[in-house]
Amino acid sequence: MDAATRIEQALERAVGRAAAPGAPPKLAAALRHAVFPGGARVRPQLSLAVARACGDDTPALSDAAAAAIELLHCASLVHDDLPCFDDAELRRGKPTVHAVYGEPLGLLAGDALIVLAFESLAQAGAAMPQRLPALSVTVARAVGVPGGLVAGQAWESEPRPDLARYQRAKTGALFVAASVAGAVAAGADPGPWRGLGERLGEAYQIADDLRDALCTPEELGKPVGRDAALGRPSAVAEFGLEGAGARLQQLLGAAVDAIPAVPGAPELQQLVLLQAKRLTPKRLAPVSVA
Amino acid sequence: MDAATRIEQALERAVGRAAAPGAPPKLAAALRHAVFPGGARVRPQLSLAVARACGDDTPALSDAAAAAIELLHCASLVHDDLPCFDDAELRRGKPTVHAVYGEPLGLLAGDALIVLAFESLAQAGAAMPQRLPALSVTVARAVGVPGGLVAGQAWESEPRPDLARYQRAKTGALFVAASVAGAVAAGADPGPWRGLGERLGEAYQIADDLRDALCTPEELGKPVGRDAALGRPSAVAEFGLEGAGARLQQLLGAAVDAIPAVPGAPELQQLVLLQAKRLTPKRLAPVSVA
Repeated sequence: MDAATRIEQALERAVGRAAAPGAPPKLAAALRHAVFPGGARVRPQLSLAVARACGDDTPALSDAAAAAIELLHCASLVHDDLPCFDDAELRRGKPTVHAVYGEPLGLLAGDALIVLAFESLAQAGAAMPQRLPALSVTVARAVGVPGGLVAGQAWESEPRPDLARYQRAKTGALFVAASVAGAVAAGADPGPWRGLGERLGEAYQIADDLRDALCTPEELGKPVGRDAALGRPSAVAEFGLEGAGARLQQLLGAAVDAIPAVPGAPELQQLVLLQAKRLTPKRLAPVSVA
Repeated sequence: MDAATRIEQALERAVGRAAAPGAPPKLAAALRHAVFPGGARVRPQLSLAVARACGDDTPALSDAAAAAIELLHCASLVHDDLPCFDDAELRRGKPTVHAVYGEPLGLLAGDALIVLAFESLAQAGAAMPQRLPALSVTVARAVGVPGGLVAGQAWESEPRPDLARYQRAKTGALFVAASVAGAVAAGADPGPWRGLGERLGEAYQIADDLRDALCTPEELGKPVGRDAALGRPSAVAEFGLEGAGARLQQLLGAAVDAIPAVPGAPELQQLVLLQAKRLTPKRLAPVSVA
């Protein structure tokens, strides 16, 4: 089965467990709305690709790790879109969860997705309990405090955020966790896999900043120019368009170099190259990572 | 070490891990504000008492289970107090998290506490991995969807909520999980412990509804009359003051009867009697549960 199918099926199993008979119908619908249809699923793709490169001896656990990471990503999007943060009406070209279901259900859908991520891990962990503690801690740290996604978002409420720490927490941590969790789920030493996640995470953040500055709302399926409008720290504000573009190119090359020499390395290189193409805004010269 | 000290120390370890150097300072302060000083810690007290009654052979896991349940309870209070729900300024006699730190950090503090609960479980689970899957699933279901706390809150957004299902999800599920998680953390069969949690949970919900209708803001340390003002489903609205009081008395008696015949049963009976006294509003006749 290809990676994309495994990811969608794992997400379907997880959301199906929550949006089951007996669930409040609007919340169940809000959960589906938040997760399907997805974006590029780049984090679970990375997680599953690393698990495969490490032998993938317990596919149910690899799938659950990938799904957990995507559910947490979706949770963060739903909460980031709420009125007290971005107040966004549009996401992936359709109305945001709170725009459709109201603010209370937007907040609750995000909460439910966080819980569902850890429930999915625990459920799959029954088949290989000795891997569950490290796997859950890896995923929790990537989204929690002091260094995960929630901490990253909270730096926006500080008077003098450190750009590097902010971006590492807000975007980088979940990429690192995707890479590390793939290895842990497959019973491999996660150490050699951190570098790949770190570089891809940083590249992704810079690409996101560039797209926010360069793209049209139609191209992105969401409002643009938000960083500048909200005075948020951004690679474009810090390095300029050209500087940020050069840094993106450099990081994608470094990501390819960071892939350990394992049998599955070519598949992973393909994934990074594909992401490189997808991440580069059309208004910048194509990024070469060969 | 007594139960209260174990609970506060476990919570301190968890919050200390999040509010560590490198965390965004305001979020770290908001997390402390949300957890300390606590209320009666009735859910972790129940969890730890059950663990002790079951032998408590892995105290670190029992402590983590109790702490996780309390962290999730605190998370739900922080999110329930937000403007899109209760819009409450006061909780436990002090300003709510969002009243002090603003709405964005209120939302993020709740998210961080959810993550921290599962991180604490996973961290302690390393000592006894084979118990972690069931423990995490128990806790996740109690707060997630379809039947946990978040689902309970979401029933308030439905046009025709079922009162029993709403209360079972919003309050009962976490009491059941507290009881069941105590047994699972101690390696015991959780089956016989559901009944105690169910009855205490229902009693607690009715007591909460009664206090909302009968107490002054000074007695509760938070606004009162919210159920009636917001048109929320409530045992007082459904059964009247007298009917709700009688039901509370009946449930507390049933909770005592539901305690399995184990060596630690007297300690648990004491706990229930103590809660019975605490839960009964002064304006109702004292509840006899002997």
